[in-house]
Amino acid sequence: MGHDLELTLEKIAGLINGTVAGNGGCIISGMNSLDNAKEGDIAFYNDSRYREQAFATKASALIVAEKLEGYAGDQILVANPKLAYARLAAMFAPKAPRYEGISKDACIDETAVVGSGVSIYPFAFVGKNAVIGDNAILFPGVFIGNNAKVGSNSVLHPNVAVYENCIIGANVIIHAGCVIGSDGFGYVQSDEGNVKVPQLGNVMIDDDVEIGANSTIDRAANGTTHIKRGVKIDNLVQVAHNVVIGEHSIVVALSGISGSVNVGKNVIIGGQVGIKDHISIGDRAIVGSAAGVHKSIAEGEAVLGNPEMPPRLWMETRAFIRKLPELNKKVRELEKRLKEVEEK
Amino acid sequence: MGHDLELTLEKIAGLINGTVAGNGGCIISGMNSLDNAKEGDIAFYNDSRYREQAFATKASALIVAEKLEGYAGDQILVANPKLAYARLAAMFAPKAPRYEGISKDACIDETAVVGSGVSIYPFAFVGKNAVIGDNAILFPGVFIGNNAKVGSNSVLHPNVAVYENCIIGANVIIHAGCVIGSDGFGYVQSDEGNVKVPQLGNVMIDDDVEIGANSTIDRAANGTTHIKRGVKIDNLVQVAHNVVIGEHSIVVALSGISGSVNVGKNVIIGGQVGIKDHISIGDRAIVGSAAGVHKSIAEGEAVLGNPEMPPRLWMETRAFIRKLPELNKKVRELEKRLKEVEEK
Amino acid sequence: MGHDLELTLEKIAGLINGTVAGNGGCIISGMNSLDNAKEGDIAFYNDSRYREQAFATKASALIVAEKLEGYAGDQILVANPKLAYARLAAMFAPKAPRYEGISKDACIDETAVVGSGVSIYPFAFVGKNAVIGDNAILFPGVFIGNNAKVGSNSVLHPNVAVYENCIIGANVIIHAGCVIGSDGFGYVQSDEGNVKVPQLGNVMIDDDVEIGANSTIDRAANGTTHIKRGVKIDNLVQVAHNVVIGEHSIVVALSGISGSVNVGKNVIIGGQVGIKDHISIGDRAIVGSAAGVHKSIAEGEAVLGNPEMPPRLWMETRAFIRKLPELNKKVRELEKRLKEVEEK
Repeated sequence: MGHDLELTLEKIAGLINGTVAGNGGCIISGMNSLDNAKEGDIAFYNDSRYREQAFATKASALIVAEKLEGYAGDQILVANPKLAYARLAAMFAPKAPRYEGISKDACIDETAVVGSGVSIYPFAFVGKNAVIGDNAILFPGVFIGNNAKVGSNSVLHPNVAVYENCIIGANVIIHAGCVIGSDGFGYVQSDEGNVKVPQLGNVMIDDDVEIGANSTIDRAANGTTHIKRGVKIDNLVQVAHNVVIGEHSIVVALSGISGSVNVGKNVIIGGQVGIKDHISIGDRAIVGSAAGVHKSIAEGEAVLGNPEMPPRLWMETRAFIRKLPELNKKVRELEKRLKEVEEK
Repeated sequence: MGHDLELTLEKIAGLINGTVAGNGGCIISGMNSLDNAKEGDIAFYNDSRYREQAFATKASALIVAEKLEGYAGDQILVANPKLAYARLAAMFAPKAPRYEGISKDACIDETAVVGSGVSIYPFAFVGKNAVIGDNAILFPGVFIGNNAKVGSNSVLHPNVAVYENCIIGANVIIHAGCVIGSDGFGYVQSDEGNVKVPQLGNVMIDDDVEIGANSTIDRAANGTTHIKRGVKIDNLVQVAHNVVIGEHSIVVALSGISGSVNVGKNVIIGGQVGIKDHISIGDRAIVGSAAGVHKSIAEGEAVLGNPEMPPRLWMETRAFIRKLPELNKKVRELEKRLKEVEEK
Repeated sequence: MGHDLELTLEKIAGLINGTVAGNGGCIISGMNSLDNAKEGDIAFYNDSRYREQAFATKASALIVAEKLEGYAGDQILVANPKLAYARLAAMFAPKAPRYEGISKDACIDETAVVGSGVSIYPFAFVGKNAVIGDNAILFPGVFIGNNAKVGSNSVLHPNVAVYENCIIGANVIIHAGCVIGSDGFGYVQSDEGNVKVPQLGNVMIDDDVEIGANSTIDRAANGTTHIKRGVKIDNLVQVAHNVVIGEHSIVVALSGISGSVNVGKNVIIGGQVGIKDHISIGDRAIVGSAAGVHKSIAEGEAVLGNPEMPPRLWMETRAFIRKLPELNKKVRELEKRLKEVEEK
């Protein structure tokens, strides 16, 4: 994995909120699956189907939910092994590859303010009065418009475009081809055709957000399209003008959120969902994949289907949709039999 | 907003087709909301809920649908305040930021023809015999293929790709990441796999079109994929080979229009719509969001749902889909009761 | 069309697996429609509606499914005229335009290995230890990450991004704006928000694949997201982490394939389809447009609708959905009539 990190088991336990069973001084230099681990590696054991591999592994230590009795090596006990995996993998995972300093083949306006430790690849463009925070990485083809800001430690992958006046926070990851701050889709119909409503606002993306490849987030007509802290957006998602997405919410691929929708905190929006404009999705709501949401969703509510409905009802209606031909047949028979009864 | 425009009230009234009530010579230098306006600004008043703000505003003039009696400042009366807003905001809105001339870091083939007043940013590429019209703007990362044309005053935002032989008209806006003229999706299945059908045509985009971020418009297999004058396309829309979209039609985000579909004039296609290949959508038709259109739609017709149906029917069926479990239960009860009657 | 190819009729017949009826030595220098052909061209005749044009054409030869009696020119008889058209058009079609050699305005890391005959346009970027195969073409704005490989004869259109460690085979075509190898969408929810699961795998794209504009293919969490030989993917398609797509399968625009889905060989997936994670689509299965697939599909099975169902059932249910208001009315009437019978 190209790192040269070495950590004691005790140090690792602290980082993943676990408890050492064994030698806390044991040195760990890598992380691997039970089968592929070698001496010095740590591996995960979280499923009794892999018990045999756990006893056969060459790993120097295991991370476990419950102590594995009879295992010879050292162990770390954690409450949430999946979370521990994510945390530890992040430690050992390769970082986004940095260009050493600012390429002479990048184009940085002389009025731009570039922090320390910034990595700017060739063919990146930074406009007038733009601000690039410390240690940020701009890959080739990234465009930062005039007066736009990118916070510290943020990574903008190839060909990301950030239009003028948009604000990206710290520790943000934006994948290749994303467009931040394109004009919202607003026109007034007239006898002479569709007259464009100027889109005078911007986009603000708070800290710790990640946005997938080729997603698009439109600038507000007035004010701000706002993606709040910790939001995670998948690939090919459309976020229209003046949308607000609350902290730690998740939006899966190919979904579209229409203008001025207010999405709460910790909401989960599945893939290929469509949400009508000017409605609200309450905190902790769950919108299932492919749902078409036409009305506001209350806090903590779950919906599925198009039109949106409670998941249990959708499960039932889904089954009944498949049985519609049968139901129609049954009704026709009832009608016939009733007619016979009536005629008697 | 970074402009330094000053207009008399009379001049503004002429531009938005309104009538001055008051001093036509009053000088206006900006536009703002009732609350935020300062002296010299003009504001809109179009809703009696904001009556109090209208009387309290510091704006020097108001645009109104009906004369606001008792208001001390000057007024412009217009028939369509929304349209007047769009027109006036366009006047005061900042223009797309221009690079001064043609960057030495752009790559323009020596056979390309570049008009006067053109702005070409660094890292734009213009191919052989391509033509760039007067005052056009090519942002960084824009690719103009061989023999392609961009009309005057058109703006191509960062990383737009226009493949060879495609024709873009005048006053066109294409947002970041759009792809114009990629190969249509055509294969012949054979024992040796899918054999590509060469896509020999092009794309033509007429004047006054706007296309949203990361949308894709494929070149024709033969002939032309044609987006006509005044069409507005949102983000992440797919337009397949040989499609024709008529004047002033609108296509909302994440919709897909299959090959050889003929869309008429002034059509509205909502978001996440899918339209089957080789059918027609008549002039002024309306296709609601998420509709799946499997057959041609007549002039002026509106459809919703999948399969497509008249909006009123869709509203009813939507409600009945939710009640399917209830309906099934009722039918089972009827059956039971009928059996009891029959047995007597 | 900008080529200067001349072939004898006999040579052409060999290439398209046909039989000459007439003079095999006849020289053909182009291909055109019956109406537009001139001397030296070959045209297709495959539909008796165009019989008149076939007799009037100026083409020197025709390709036909059955011999056209009474036609004066030479003919080639083929079993599959569509396939013959695709093969022959490929011969006469213009090739992707090449930049002569490697532009001095491209940025190629000194550790990269670049084959012979490679065409690299300005503003392309090739990272450390990347490998570019013989005769490959990298258009402007293409990004090839560290350790990534592009096979021989492959064409990457403008602004394609290939992240580090991803492998592209030979004879692959990737259209503008595609993103290969962005991080899969994986998070563990915790009290402190969504914790990113590092995406440590890569993407492998085998020979003869074509991918449409602005599609996105995520790298695996561990292991490989694998697009096998001859697969054809349309525009704006999302392929999630750890998906495998088997040989010669087809995926139409705006479809989303969720994580760890296993798609078999020769599968056809229509437009705007959504496929749930961790399921399988058997070889030669057909998933109709806009289907929502929630369970594995067997070999050779066809499904339509959401939820997915056999095509015949979907045709029926579609019709019955439209008739739901009528059915409900009928049931209410039956209930009323039954009540009257019961009361007697």
